[in-house]
Amino acid sequence: MTVIRAMRVFIVHAHPEAKSFSGAMTRTATEALRAAGNEVVISDLYAMGFNPVSDRRNFTTVRDPAYFRQQAEEAHAASHDGFATELQQEMDKLFWCDVLILQFPLWWFGLPAILKGWVDRVFASGGRTYGGGKWYDRGVFVGKRAMCALTIGGPESMYSERGLNGALSTILFPINHGMLYFTGFTVIEPFVVHAPVRKTDEERAAELGRYRERVLGLATAATISYPKLADYDERYVLRATPEGKTVSKS
Amino acid sequence: MTVIRAMRVFIVHAHPEAKSFSGAMTRTATEALRAAGNEVVISDLYAMGFNPVSDRRNFTTVRDPAYFRQQAEEAHAASHDGFATELQQEMDKLFWCDVLILQFPLWWFGLPAILKGWVDRVFASGGRTYGGGKWYDRGVFVGKRAMCALTIGGPESMYSERGLNGALSTILFPINHGMLYFTGFTVIEPFVVHAPVRKTDEERAAELGRYRERVLGLATAATISYPKLADYDERYVLRATPEGKTVSKS
Repeated sequence: MTVIRAMRVFIVHAHPEAKSFSGAMTRTATEALRAAGNEVVISDLYAMGFNPVSDRRNFTTVRDPAYFRQQAEEAHAASHDGFATELQQEMDKLFWCDVLILQFPLWWFGLPAILKGWVDRVFASGGRTYGGGKWYDRGVFVGKRAMCALTIGGPESMYSERGLNGALSTILFPINHGMLYFTGFTVIEPFVVHAPVRKTDEERAAELGRYRERVLGLATAATISYPKLADYDERYVLRATPEGKTVSKS
Repeated sequence: MTVIRAMRVFIVHAHPEAKSFSGAMTRTATEALRAAGNEVVISDLYAMGFNPVSDRRNFTTVRDPAYFRQQAEEAHAASHDGFATELQQEMDKLFWCDVLILQFPLWWFGLPAILKGWVDRVFASGGRTYGGGKWYDRGVFVGKRAMCALTIGGPESMYSERGLNGALSTILFPINHGMLYFTGFTVIEPFVVHAPVRKTDEERAAELGRYRERVLGLATAATISYPKLADYDERYVLRATPEGKTVSKS
């Protein structure tokens, strides 16, 4: 029998309709995780009315009132406790959690804007979530895990390696590698449900059962293997391996 | 001597600081194009206070008040003239233009949320901008061209094929292939300026000169070659070529 250590799970949920399949996924995950003794915190971005537009509203401090350079303002805010309360609260949840789940419908091959803007605003520079040499396998969130849980309108074949819309691993690369691994997370393989709207009730229930198993196994779920900083040269180009093999980037 | 036909160019500009290098790029493009007899329309999303959150505010019509299914509401709005004025105006600009330019800083390996949400909301289903078999090389905007013009904080080597952050072509694939080609545009190779903040005034002026040449040559600029719908089988998987070669997706 496997003993599951209690986990702190932070779900960032981005869907405008609570009755959606995405909504059912987050409810399923929350109930299953809590029933097993884990803690769950949810940021339901639409319900919160989260504003995804990154600008001076991110800060209570001002470094340069004449010229807005976002990263410079972030660094200044990081050293002067100057993040807006709504961002500081999200950062606190990131530091609290063991596992981060991004729950979203794939819109235009990426995150819905409300979730993209959550990343734009909350993943702030200046050493708070990255910067000063803290990135990738030396990132701020090293030791934590993260996973995309998403619904996709089209069928799986359309997102295969030779599919019309491109390989899902390529489509998710900017998220998995660029947002999650960049800030230090170990990235769990995404959990994907294709075209829930065209499934029967029984098929949807089966998908939720499959998701329930996945979230209960988050601590040991398969992860994506990426190169480490030490694998790159001083120009940030991947070194040849001793055997001359190419290491895959995606 | 090359004779340049007058073009209608639509620039969607997404940067919170007017004095930024992105701002200089859009001013340079506008002045150069107009001086050469072309028409330019700009949507400056931050200046417009554009709201990128996609929900019922997209529509003046309601198909199902009890359950918000975005694509179903889009299809309903498309056949009942039910798009919010702010979206209809953006659609009108898309139909008006010969060339679309997305001008943005690369934030977290994608579009700033304000621009991602412009796509989420304006690129509506139901046949208006896609749907009903109108996509890719049979898309609504076939015959028009589109280009990403972007600034990137890190150096070029970091975005090379074996670079630490991944190949830029992979990072931009969801935008170039998934948003622009998906809706029918012929996709021009992106115009990229790396780390403008760390360049000298002379280097920045040279980059703007290079951009000036690019926008004046938009009609003939090099484009990205993608497979066509006819190259896919009924499961939307790329057919083997007669020679058995694999056609690249990115």
